Order: sequence, then C-alpha cells, then structure tokens
Amino acid sequence: MRVGIIVIGNEVLSGKVEDINSTWLMAQFRELGAKVARVAIVPDEIPVIAEELRRFADLFDVVITTGGVGPTHDDLTFAAVAQAFGREMEHNTVLEKVIRGYIRDEIGPGYLRMAMLPVGTDLIFAGELPFPITRVENVYVMPGEPSVLRKKFSAIRESFREAPFHLRRLYTRLDEGHLADMLDQLQRDHAAVEIGSYPVYGNPDYQTQITIESKERAATEAAFAALVELVPADTVWRRDA
Amino acid sequence: MRVGIIVIGNEVLSGKVEDINSTWLMAQFRELGAKVARVAIVPDEIPVIAEELRRFADLFDVVITTGGVGPTHDDLTFAAVAQAFGREMEHNTVLEKVIRGYIRDEIGPGYLRMAMLPVGTDLIFAGELPFPITRVENVYVMPGEPSVLRKKFSAIRESFREAPFHLRRLYTRLDEGHLADMLDQLQRDHAAVEIGSYPVYGNPDYQTQITIESKERAATEAAFAALVELVPADTVWRRDA
Repeated sequence: MRVGIIVIGNEVLSGKVEDINSTWLMAQFRELGAKVARVAIVPDEIPVIAEELRRFADLFDVVITTGGVGPTHDDLTFAAVAQAFGREMEHNTVLEKVIRGYIRDEIGPGYLRMAMLPVGTDLIFAGELPFPITRVENVYVMPGEPSVLRKKFSAIRESFREAPFHLRRLYTRLDEGHLADMLDQLQRDHAAVEIGSYPVYGNPDYQTQITIESKERAATEAAFAALVELVPADTVWRRDA
Repeated sequence: MRVGIIVIGNEVLSGKVEDINSTWLMAQFRELGAKVARVAIVPDEIPVIAEELRRFADLFDVVITTGGVGPTHDDLTFAAVAQAFGREMEHNTVLEKVIRGYIRDEIGPGYLRMAMLPVGTDLIFAGELPFPITRVENVYVMPGEPSVLRKKFSAIRESFREAPFHLRRLYTRLDEGHLADMLDQLQRDHAAVEIGSYPVYGNPDYQTQITIESKERAATEAAFAALVELVPADTVWRRDA
C-alpha cells in the first residue's frame, strides 16, 4: 500500500503554525507497515489543492489530507475535493443531524456549514468519535487540529495495517566518503533491502548511521550480517543485536 | 518571490528521520518576507525527483532542495537535476580541487564522487564556507544534514530578502462556528489582507487564534482594528497591541 499525504494551509507554508501532522502520520504508517510515498504542503487555494488531489489519488492507494475543513472562509478542502473528482457540493443531511446534536451546548452555529460535502462522500462512524470520518474515493479528508486528527486517524488506523518492516541500524565513526564503496557493493549483493546512510556532523560518538530495511526478516538479517562484516569493528559505536 | 521546497529522502517518508529542514526554511523565508508556495517530500528515486524539480522550477522563482547530495548510492539529487534540465553530468574540476584540499585530514576518498555535477552548475563561494553552494538555473541544491544546511543557507539568505510581512494576532474564546460570519464579512471588507483562523481544542484560555497579515502595514492595521471591533471584548484572551 502506497500512501500520499497532503497538508493544506497557508499557516504552515508561512511558518506561522508548525506542521506536526505529517510527521506524526509518517510515523504511524511506518508502524503499520505501510509506505508513505509522497507528502505535499499546499496553500488554501482550490485549484492548487484540487490538482494535487487528482495527482495523488491517481498515484497512490490511499491519500490523507489534513486541514481546511472548518467552517470559515479559508476552509476550502471539500470544495477542492469536489472539483478534483468532478462532483457537486450538497447539503449532507446525516452530517447536519450529527452537528445539530452538538450545537446547543458546545459549538457555534457556523459549524452547520461543515455539512456541505461533495455528493457521495462516505461518512465513517468509528469508535467513540462524535463526528464521522469523511472519505471521497481513496481520499480521507482529515482535520488540521492535531488532537482531533490523531483521534480520528487512530479510530481507523488498523484498517491500514500491513506486514511490518524489519529494520537494523549500525552507527560508525567512518564518514560517508569511507563507506561509499562498501555500501555500493552491499546494495548490489542485497538488492532486496533498502540501505540508507545518514551523516551527522559534530557528534563525538559516530559520523554515519546506516540502516537496512525490508519486509523480509531473513533478507534484512542477511544484509545486516554482511554489513557488520564490512564495517571495521573498531569504528562501530553501536549496532542493533 | 515565490519559493518551492523539495525535501528528498526515503528516511523522512519512512519516519526514520524527522524532517526539520522544511520547517526551518519556512520560518527563514517568512522572516525574509518571501512566500513559500509549496513543499514536497519525495523518495530517493531519480524520475520522481526530476519530475517534481521540473514542476517546481517552472512554477516558482526559487527552488530549494535538501538531501541526497552525499557520496553514497542513495544520493541521487544531482543526477535528477541533470535529468530535469536535460544536462549531462560531468566531473567539476573546481569542486574536485576544493574537495581534495580537505581529504587528507578530514573526509573520506568517496567524497570525490561529489564532484560529479550537472554541466554548468553554478558554484557559489560564500562567507566562511569550506564548500560552495551549488545551483542549477533557479534550483539551489542543499544538503540534508541540518547543521550544514543551516550554515549554507545562512550564507546566502540576505539575497532572498524582500519587504517584510505585517502580522497581527487575536485569541478568542469563541469557536470558529461563532466566528465564521464575521470573518467572512471582514475578508470581504479587507480583501488586501490574508485572514487566518486556527482552532485549538482543550486549551482553557482560547478556542481560536485569528491572524491578519499583509505586506502593507496600513492594510493590516485597518483590518485588525475592524477585527477588534467585531469580536466581543469579553471573549478575547489576548491580542497584539
């Protein structure tokens, strides 16, 4: 399963609000064994959001959007979803009923605007959530407020679970310039695994972190054993067992 | 000036390494008065990087890439830049000389591979930097290691400076449902400013942050004065003077 994430909001691009949602979602999907293939951060502009939605919906199995779903003038995500999929907007009577149940005590009347959805939007009532999760085709339209996003995603996260990744790490005092040839060789010999190397500067313990990862435990272990053979033991600061 | 940022690296998408570079760059450009219009996080795959580079280079005035510029097998950014702009790769003799000057004591021989660059790459020697900044057309190719990225960007940041943004904020205990109509009206009356509203849940002090922003101080102040009139004073937790 390949996942695309679209973060919507001028407040993120302009540096006023930090995007912690995409980072959190990437970690969630990692734990679920699913691959996030692309992330985009886009402004509150319907044509831009719609174009990115169209591309992502075609390229990936699952698309998650965050942001732009409130009742105010800068909340344009559903209008962009409607445009991307060539659907009209309509008053969703089920969602309106749910919202009306909450208005009296807790939320303002403008929230009724949130019942305007693209025709045929799926409403997913999950767990203890007061409001449903909204989905159009393979696009899950999620809120930007981090606490609400997390509650909503957590209610459906198990539906995304796949076989886990198997990861091993080694930290060495060698820099990438001394590692390049051996990692090239290792990647050729172990084409089934993904090998990453990440330099760090100014750390007294190590200069490079090397990761080996795949969905096959045996392939990961074999490549990692070969790595341990290749990297001189007296340069290794720490490694997975 | 419209800026696009492309973060390159499987390690970010897979949740192994947190991307702090795009957040830092967005804050930098904000302070410089420039607008970041789009961010993409893409995997270490030449065709994907090249396609995104092509799009961003056409859409935006300045493109910054981070990551994928080291000497190992997963460092593919320059090959992608060459593909995006239809250039060959070549051995850059100036950069090789600079690298050779460092090899003896500090870095490994594989670093010489980093002298393979697209034909016609601009080398920008700035400040006290030992290595030049690399640019192809309007694309600045930056490293992913945060401390090095920051040093390199800081050395040229003033070249991106524009007129500053003027921002005012107000925090209210009203939720967005009670604010939607007045913010709609405000945006119609003050079309020159950008109005943002950001809900927060579970905070006892306020429920919504409202921002007003533009490059014209007078326009920002006029819209903010109107906002202060519109929002009932007894719901305001805090506001800019």
